[in-house]
Amino acid sequence: MAEEKLPTRADDFAEWYNQLVIRAEMADYAPVRGCMVVRPYGWALWENIQQALDKRFKATGHMNAAFPLLIPKSFLEKEKEHVEGFSPELAIVTIGGGEILEEPLIVRPTSETVIGYMYAKWIKSYRDLPVLINQWGNVVRWELRTKLFLRTLEFYWQEGHTAHATAQEAQEETLRMLDVYADFAINEAAVPVIKGIKSPTEKFAGAIQSTTIEAMMGDTRALQSGTSHFLGQNFAKAFNIQYLDVNNTLQHCWTTSWGLSTRFIGAIIMTHGDDQGLVLPPRLAPIQVVIIPIYKNDVERSAVTEVVEKLKSELGAFRIKIDDRTEVTPGFKFNDWEMRGVPLRIEVGPKDVEKGTLALSRRDHPGRAGKSFVPQTGIASNVADTLDDIQKSLLARATVFRDANIHDPQNYEELKEVVTKGWAYSWWCESPECEARVKEDTKASTRCIPIDQTSGSGTCVVCGEKATKKVYYAKSY
Amino acid sequence: MAEEKLPTRADDFAEWYNQLVIRAEMADYAPVRGCMVVRPYGWALWENIQQALDKRFKATGHMNAAFPLLIPKSFLEKEKEHVEGFSPELAIVTIGGGEILEEPLIVRPTSETVIGYMYAKWIKSYRDLPVLINQWGNVVRWELRTKLFLRTLEFYWQEGHTAHATAQEAQEETLRMLDVYADFAINEAAVPVIKGIKSPTEKFAGAIQSTTIEAMMGDTRALQSGTSHFLGQNFAKAFNIQYLDVNNTLQHCWTTSWGLSTRFIGAIIMTHGDDQGLVLPPRLAPIQVVIIPIYKNDVERSAVTEVVEKLKSELGAFRIKIDDRTEVTPGFKFNDWEMRGVPLRIEVGPKDVEKGTLALSRRDHPGRAGKSFVPQTGIASNVADTLDDIQKSLLARATVFRDANIHDPQNYEELKEVVTKGWAYSWWCESPECEARVKEDTKASTRCIPIDQTSGSGTCVVCGEKATKKVYYAKSY
Repeated sequence: MAEEKLPTRADDFAEWYNQLVIRAEMADYAPVRGCMVVRPYGWALWENIQQALDKRFKATGHMNAAFPLLIPKSFLEKEKEHVEGFSPELAIVTIGGGEILEEPLIVRPTSETVIGYMYAKWIKSYRDLPVLINQWGNVVRWELRTKLFLRTLEFYWQEGHTAHATAQEAQEETLRMLDVYADFAINEAAVPVIKGIKSPTEKFAGAIQSTTIEAMMGDTRALQSGTSHFLGQNFAKAFNIQYLDVNNTLQHCWTTSWGLSTRFIGAIIMTHGDDQGLVLPPRLAPIQVVIIPIYKNDVERSAVTEVVEKLKSELGAFRIKIDDRTEVTPGFKFNDWEMRGVPLRIEVGPKDVEKGTLALSRRDHPGRAGKSFVPQTGIASNVADTLDDIQKSLLARATVFRDANIHDPQNYEELKEVVTKGWAYSWWCESPECEARVKEDTKASTRCIPIDQTSGSGTCVVCGEKATKKVYYAKSY
Repeated sequence: MAEEKLPTRADDFAEWYNQLVIRAEMADYAPVRGCMVVRPYGWALWENIQQALDKRFKATGHMNAAFPLLIPKSFLEKEKEHVEGFSPELAIVTIGGGEILEEPLIVRPTSETVIGYMYAKWIKSYRDLPVLINQWGNVVRWELRTKLFLRTLEFYWQEGHTAHATAQEAQEETLRMLDVYADFAINEAAVPVIKGIKSPTEKFAGAIQSTTIEAMMGDTRALQSGTSHFLGQNFAKAFNIQYLDVNNTLQHCWTTSWGLSTRFIGAIIMTHGDDQGLVLPPRLAPIQVVIIPIYKNDVERSAVTEVVEKLKSELGAFRIKIDDRTEVTPGFKFNDWEMRGVPLRIEVGPKDVEKGTLALSRRDHPGRAGKSFVPQTGIASNVADTLDDIQKSLLARATVFRDANIHDPQNYEELKEVVTKGWAYSWWCESPECEARVKEDTKASTRCIPIDQTSGSGTCVVCGEKATKKVYYAKSY
């Protein structure tokens, strides 16, 4: 029960994160190197993320389905860039039912290939298009350096895979789903992501163009938080996904894929967390309100419990938790739920019973600043308003932090300096050489060419050549 | 578009099933032998099953979590019966990231072992108990003879894993979850399952006692549709899941596990389906009501569309589909949605516009018998009542069918005869020899000793010895 302090974020951000994930019981290390167990508190957060996204997928016409975990090795080899991108990361089943398999099977690192095979079987005519399918599932990539949620051998995600009659429709779909991700990130998770296009060097293996939402973590490093890819006809040609058009001519489809994973839990933790622990956005928090009864004797207990029971019934619309543990002190409970990031705490003590009040504490302003005393009457609407306000304040705070840490270096020396402590937003000539030079000199990579940028031109901050696009450079997870 | 008739159930039940699953687009064969793709229509049914179960799991205090797909091979070997039960069925990863692994990894066939390992890490004191966790996921068992939904190499399921301080609590949990399954099967899926205890021969590898819900399919064969296991201290001892009790003494936990899988989709298809195709219970059907506009010209179309739009807004509480395809006839649509098992069809034609009526067709009574004309006014409550009535009638019909096909053979010769066309419900001396003899002579196995049986005694129908329990014998899937 002894409480050890977390390392502060300023002292050791990485260690703050690692310890917090374990201590808040979000996840744990599995017995296999690099694999994780997502514990109930972490999974409840993921379920809320899933619901928020799934609602948006269905509203944009998608349905869910399930494709197989095991993929014939030969499938991955059909798309040249794809196999090069994924080969080093594969987990391979070579034995099944006690016998060595004739063709080894890959544990899917992503499902473009097997879905491409099925789409080729299902799609015959333009009337069958578009095909708009999403899958919630697990994938395996043999990563060497792992970190809970951010990079694990197995992770959980959704992968959308769509097939269209024209390039334009597929491109529109790619951007539609990027918008869905951005809307989810900003309005549900209060993570102010930036939408943009990946450089050719940084794109998905097999895509024509990859788009991304990029978030800034509390240490100013970037986290790629969701991606949406225009695959052109690459996979359609590799797997013969064809349809008869209105003129009865056989055409290859145009496809997209898009995914967001449990990595996003890491984004939430590292965007909002503080030195006391997690700070979860109310719309996604597994527990939105924790209620803590405070009493010294049985008489007080009985009076307090009555108010707590009334609260319980009045706050039925919220995800609440009553912490009635007797083996720990109220002070311990305050710290515990602060560490777990519950947005709002309600304390009920004998004085509150007497006065008809409650003590509210906001997680976004720890300590005295976030504490207020409110009447018991009208508590439901007070809680609703306060949670809304916390949601807004988290987004505002993260946006201010992000913008304060995006720099506009005037020359290459300045660029090298600013990416040690933030992002650079700079003109780029779009040559892979300049991109590579920055990476070699600073470890910062291009994150994205933002979609919402004003037109204009300048000079590449690396080579001085003319440039028509600005790009973000940052160190990333 | 040519419609070929399904084989009838009487002519070839197996082929009726196989073709129906494909044609109704519930599932398809994956490129890897024995694996399946669950298509959007099938997955939507599974999502409804998941919701109905998940609600019940959470109401009984369980939370979801996610444990790893890959399990060290040595883990499976720690529980003697468990490794013997699963060894022949394993898919084994021997290569990861381009290198041969020191210890091969098993693609989980079930998660008792890895969850046992984690519980040993998490559980310290009696205050940590009970641990009530469920997982939704995929597992792989290398089956030789496969059939879509019923037996595939990879399947989807939930597996609950709980740890308790006492044997009694664990046994209560085992039966509680069996009740949850039975309640779900009967009241959501209209599948009148029988709850019972598996014989020691038929139990789960590693359990002390397995309980099951058994359903009778349309060909009278039995389908094990969900199981709940009391694991005693077998896994607690194999993985050192221990806790300090109130007296500060170290004790082993008592554990349970329970699972229900996509196999249940097969149970729904084979319980309710008829020669026209699927018949889905309204509470789980992905589409509860299909609306078919009927018109011959633009004037009619516009009038009909107006009514359809009104219906759409009034039936917002139901899962509806408007079939406005122009390339197929209404008759084609009727057959198509009947084949897909949509419980209720509403036709809207010019005469309905004129008269303020609608034509309702119930899927549980195809043809004229299930058709009625109802006023447009009050359609929402009419639909609600009709769906309720269909739900009840499906359960009643399946119960009558089940009971009509359970026989009470008076001697062994009669038993051998009745299990060719139904189930036998007979006294059993509980010796594995009698059980084995029936299996050898008839291919029928003991399905379960029902929990709700009146006490009494009789003579074993196989050997004539005294018996105090009755058991179901049946051929099974």
